[in-house]
Amino acid sequence: MRIIIDAMGGDNAPVEIVKGTLAAATKRPDVEMVLVGREEAVRAAMGQQTPANVTVVNATEVIEICDDPATAFKKKKDSSITVGLNMLKTGEGDAFVSAGSTGALLSAATLVVKRIKGIRRAAMCPVIPTAAGQAVLIDCGANAECTVEYLVQFAYLGSFYASHVLGIKNPRVGLLNIGAEPSKGDSLRLATWPVLQAAGERGEINFIGNIEAKEAIKGGCDVIVADGYSGNIMLKTIEGVGSYLGGEVKKLFLQSAKTKIAGLLVQSGLKAFKAQLDPDRVGGTAFLGISKPVIKAHGSSGAYAIENAIYQAVRVAESAIIAEIEANVDKMKVEITQS
Amino acid sequence: MRIIIDAMGGDNAPVEIVKGTLAAATKRPDVEMVLVGREEAVRAAMGQQTPANVTVVNATEVIEICDDPATAFKKKKDSSITVGLNMLKTGEGDAFVSAGSTGALLSAATLVVKRIKGIRRAAMCPVIPTAAGQAVLIDCGANAECTVEYLVQFAYLGSFYASHVLGIKNPRVGLLNIGAEPSKGDSLRLATWPVLQAAGERGEINFIGNIEAKEAIKGGCDVIVADGYSGNIMLKTIEGVGSYLGGEVKKLFLQSAKTKIAGLLVQSGLKAFKAQLDPDRVGGTAFLGISKPVIKAHGSSGAYAIENAIYQAVRVAESAIIAEIEANVDKMKVEITQS
Repeated sequence: MRIIIDAMGGDNAPVEIVKGTLAAATKRPDVEMVLVGREEAVRAAMGQQTPANVTVVNATEVIEICDDPATAFKKKKDSSITVGLNMLKTGEGDAFVSAGSTGALLSAATLVVKRIKGIRRAAMCPVIPTAAGQAVLIDCGANAECTVEYLVQFAYLGSFYASHVLGIKNPRVGLLNIGAEPSKGDSLRLATWPVLQAAGERGEINFIGNIEAKEAIKGGCDVIVADGYSGNIMLKTIEGVGSYLGGEVKKLFLQSAKTKIAGLLVQSGLKAFKAQLDPDRVGGTAFLGISKPVIKAHGSSGAYAIENAIYQAVRVAESAIIAEIEANVDKMKVEITQS
Repeated sequence: MRIIIDAMGGDNAPVEIVKGTLAAATKRPDVEMVLVGREEAVRAAMGQQTPANVTVVNATEVIEICDDPATAFKKKKDSSITVGLNMLKTGEGDAFVSAGSTGALLSAATLVVKRIKGIRRAAMCPVIPTAAGQAVLIDCGANAECTVEYLVQFAYLGSFYASHVLGIKNPRVGLLNIGAEPSKGDSLRLATWPVLQAAGERGEINFIGNIEAKEAIKGGCDVIVADGYSGNIMLKTIEGVGSYLGGEVKKLFLQSAKTKIAGLLVQSGLKAFKAQLDPDRVGGTAFLGISKPVIKAHGSSGAYAIENAIYQAVRVAESAIIAEIEANVDKMKVEITQS
């Protein structure tokens, strides 16, 4: 198993990327890790640490946030993203991890590594915390404008991710909507529901119907199917409310000596509470639908997030998810002319 | 000032509705309140309390959740919603409050009381808590499918609500989107942005551009403009995460004798924390765009929520918002043919 890591992507590159990689390399000596980026900077960040399972591949260019995401990887042929994805394509690694620009990474993955044949669009599928554990939210921003077929494919992709990568048996798939009844929602939801219902009846996915955002947060399903626009609204609202209420809870204990003592008394519980809100625990989100595992880590990733994104990449690469998608892609075809 | 209250709407009618009305009547002796519903049941709920400013109007029918929302008010001519809205229409009251079926109330308000001339669709505009205070979210479910013109009208309506009812000076209006740049989002957002930008440049609204959900929760704007589908996703996600994390915080203090003591030490702060999460504080949401004030209270409203919905109805009726909308409706026209 060999994971390729973009050493230059994200706000804290290369130092935190290198740090996270070294931490993962120590804990997983069975996994080879390849850091791609400006060799001098990467080696400087490594310092005295040179584990046997970490190698460095030089790439002189860096794709910046200001670069045009659609063309950056072509113009900067020696960028860490372009070099890393070409290595993935030619089999010099089993998965690619990057905290770089989402748009540039998605364009490059789509055009260099390519989508699985028959898959219309790659989707992002972050794992969100719920009151019952976790759920996959697919898509959450890669595709602002969706068709029925995209949503149907997301349902299968998310279901395969939940079962193959998260180990959830017979994952419950819900269509994110503003009411539970099939008659609820906009025209996209109205047209998608019967196609998912039919897939459920054929036993291809475990479709439980429409799910409201509130029920999804309660843990009402394992896979939340959304267009990239509304999935992103949901994801960012979760992050926003989590951060806001996390801050309020913190303030609760900082008011006086008395409340500070209270903080000490609930210390272990508070730690667990904070961990629940920590997006870095998961690491990143896979681009599902790409023919090889590509993991996008958050742009603000620190070492801990990168370490977890690497473990996630290992899990995705070890799973049979891509073979499963390829074997089932014919079932995901939708012949509907949309208005 | 006279507020008409649907005594039969919602899960806890008539007992909690009557209780909330009596509480409001005691605190606001200057406001007349008219309870509309099955007189016997309403009087039974009132018991010995017969304040001078509360009257009862008999209506023998009740619109149930299972009734068709589009036609229920016509079929049940003697329902509390139909009778109450007809009283509002003919000037026998200044505002109507109901915790009944959203769909039935919206249809009835639209067809009995009518929309303001030129307004394409009425919208729901709940006030949500943010890290900086509060924001108006418009729409959040009345209109699943929206056009550019609807969104543009929502921007004006929400802006007028924020200034006239909440007292926010020059409210900052943001278009809910998945990125801050004008180039972000789906085709609806791409087409709406320039129209709002132009309205901002003319000084008619204080348009600050696109706003991401996370920034909105931080308090980045005072009015969040959304189609009813994604606005509902945002609202229900806030409710879901709030309830989930509220529960986790509660658990934090229930683990042992030690943590229970901690709970006592932060008691006052905890109370304030819970209040922030309490949707009943606001009471309900106005149907903006209807020619008279109609307030929808949550279906699960207890007495406290109804009491607050009545105060909210008073504020809306006292404000100049409807005259302001009427005076500005010509500015909200959009001549775009949408794809």
